[in-house]
Amino acid sequence: SRSYRIAVVPGDGIGKETVPEGLRVLDAAARRFGFDLTLDHYDWSCETYKKTGRMMPEDGMERLAESDSIFLGAVGWPDVPDHVSLWGLLIPIRRGFDQYISLRPCKLMPGTKTPLANRGPADIDFYVVRENTEGEYSSSGGRMFEGTPREFVSQESVFTRHGVDRVLKYAFELAQTRPRKKVTSATKSNGITFTMPYWDERFAEMAKSYPGITTDQFHIDILCAHFVQHPDWFDVVVGSNLFGDILSDLGPAVAGSIGIAPSANINPEKAHPSMFEPVHGSAPDIAGKFICNPIGQIWSGAMMLEHLGEKEAADAILRCIEKLLAEGGPRTRDLGGQAGTEDVGRALAQAI
Amino acid sequence: SRSYRIAVVPGDGIGKETVPEGLRVLDAAARRFGFDLTLDHYDWSCETYKKTGRMMPEDGMERLAESDSIFLGAVGWPDVPDHVSLWGLLIPIRRGFDQYISLRPCKLMPGTKTPLANRGPADIDFYVVRENTEGEYSSSGGRMFEGTPREFVSQESVFTRHGVDRVLKYAFELAQTRPRKKVTSATKSNGITFTMPYWDERFAEMAKSYPGITTDQFHIDILCAHFVQHPDWFDVVVGSNLFGDILSDLGPAVAGSIGIAPSANINPEKAHPSMFEPVHGSAPDIAGKFICNPIGQIWSGAMMLEHLGEKEAADAILRCIEKLLAEGGPRTRDLGGQAGTEDVGRALAQAI
Ligand SMILES: CC(C)[C@H](C(=O)O)[C@@H](O)C(=O)O
Ligand SMILES: CC(C)[C@H](C(=O)O)[C@@H](O)C(=O)O
Repeated sequence: SRSYRIAVVPGDGIGKETVPEGLRVLDAAARRFGFDLTLDHYDWSCETYKKTGRMMPEDGMERLAESDSIFLGAVGWPDVPDHVSLWGLLIPIRRGFDQYISLRPCKLMPGTKTPLANRGPADIDFYVVRENTEGEYSSSGGRMFEGTPREFVSQESVFTRHGVDRVLKYAFELAQTRPRKKVTSATKSNGITFTMPYWDERFAEMAKSYPGITTDQFHIDILCAHFVQHPDWFDVVVGSNLFGDILSDLGPAVAGSIGIAPSANINPEKAHPSMFEPVHGSAPDIAGKFICNPIGQIWSGAMMLEHLGEKEAADAILRCIEKLLAEGGPRTRDLGGQAGTEDVGRALAQAI
Repeated sequence: SRSYRIAVVPGDGIGKETVPEGLRVLDAAARRFGFDLTLDHYDWSCETYKKTGRMMPEDGMERLAESDSIFLGAVGWPDVPDHVSLWGLLIPIRRGFDQYISLRPCKLMPGTKTPLANRGPADIDFYVVRENTEGEYSSSGGRMFEGTPREFVSQESVFTRHGVDRVLKYAFELAQTRPRKKVTSATKSNGITFTMPYWDERFAEMAKSYPGITTDQFHIDILCAHFVQHPDWFDVVVGSNLFGDILSDLGPAVAGSIGIAPSANINPEKAHPSMFEPVHGSAPDIAGKFICNPIGQIWSGAMMLEHLGEKEAADAILRCIEKLLAEGGPRTRDLGGQAGTEDVGRALAQAI
């Protein structure tokens, strides 16, 4: 039978509470749809760092490389600086495995609330496709005249044809699979005048190969405004590492789903494992109480199954989440309920 | 009596319709509060460019330098590329006159609608302070391996101690004048790891000089989300050129005021003239019909008077705008009314 090897990294804080629920639902889906999951558990986290001085062992990437996918909880803890935790675990995986697509659905789920007035599920249902390896998150930069009044820092954004074309292509291919077939590009070529005009140029070039796809583009400032004013305009939105980062938090915020939104870090060619993680972080304020909402993790599991080719199982999980939310199934506190993390996981596993 | 010399640049499109209404109200305020305005009119625009090959004449900056303030409408037209129009008129003024502060109020006006559910004027009332001369809008960058698969572009963000400290200082000083006395800093030091940690460092340093001010900071992605979810958290928000640009469109969008929001490009030392312009653009779709809303221009005029030291007059204009909106005075179509541009200008001039 079909079989997949999954590296499981709960990480920090509530990641340790949501990941088991994600696995519970994945397991139910595997049994129901007839495939096998082999799990390798890794306890890499800020705790590991405090004990060993490393977020993951030296051969960490090699071990992960043996898996088909990585199922991650959350990385980060208040007493460990981000440049240690994130740059010791999350970012090396994204870069090392060339997960050049970050994909995040922005979807108003039935039975949940958006902060926008007069908007329903039909109005907010789009994807943000983010370039995940280059652009503004670069490793080229530095500081001069340190400690003097002339002090300055600089950092270079770098956009390669290779990097830009492949994320644009992914966005157009994704739009092909959607009923509205539309791609919106985030730019800022009126202000950032070397890199962004190039992005626009490649976008226009790529659009030529997809005559069936409608396109438009907005400067990032007004695009953020449009997310709030006209979320119904969007279908697939593509942006650079930074712009995609901003839009893929703003999109779920607008959809009211930031606490339950999933994300995928994808290497579309499957040359390396892809990684699936909820949008939320390790949430130190509620960690350890088993009151957090596991839906972001479970939804990330559905995205993982879709990536592995188990589309039917992925759709089934998503339908169960929608049903649970719409029909008053168990809810955690963030959604106004009283249920614990496990109650939600169990209800969804059972529903599959 | 007190007297100010104003350079008037209506620019393109609806700028030519809103600026006369702005002047009408300024004139009324001058008479009421006993000061004089001397106006120098300049018709610099995309039309000028099409006739002369320049957005402004060679001695344009010298002429503007003679004024106390610049009152601008809108710059840009579809048949002239942005890098010509904006970089030929707007950006040179901001940089040439070292208008290092861009200041934009984000304020839900009584009688107008926000796209957010269950939010009233008490919930949305803050300022975005944007660094307006350096950062991500840099002139250092380029392209290599052009036209080949190895092609790439790069652009350097540059943050100087001089540039960062002065905008932070302005934000703290502004917060001192406000009841809540709070400054929020926009960062992205977990992803943009050379420049943004420096921004954070200077922010922490500046905060030490203002023990009476509450501070916090958020990464730009989640900060955008918070603008939508918790606009009531904010008082003064300070960001880099790019982050400030994004937040100062998103803020007015959240406040429902993007069509009527003002902006100020300020040189606080008054070593050079400052510039005041509405947030909206030249709006080619409705230009020429005299149906556009002049409130953004008029509100920008109020900010100009405040900068010139005529605080009483500035407050009076703002109160008249609030009253007109709250009490069903003439409204243009964007606000659901039938009034023309001039009707609104006349009503406000009369009210002063
Ligand atoms: C026109 C453009 C260059 C400008 C900017 O980004 O500075 C505009 O968006 C603004 O905010 O005034
Ligand atoms: C943690 C941080 C570096 C990261 C990013 O900006 O990539 C996060 O915001 C995300 O979107 O996954």
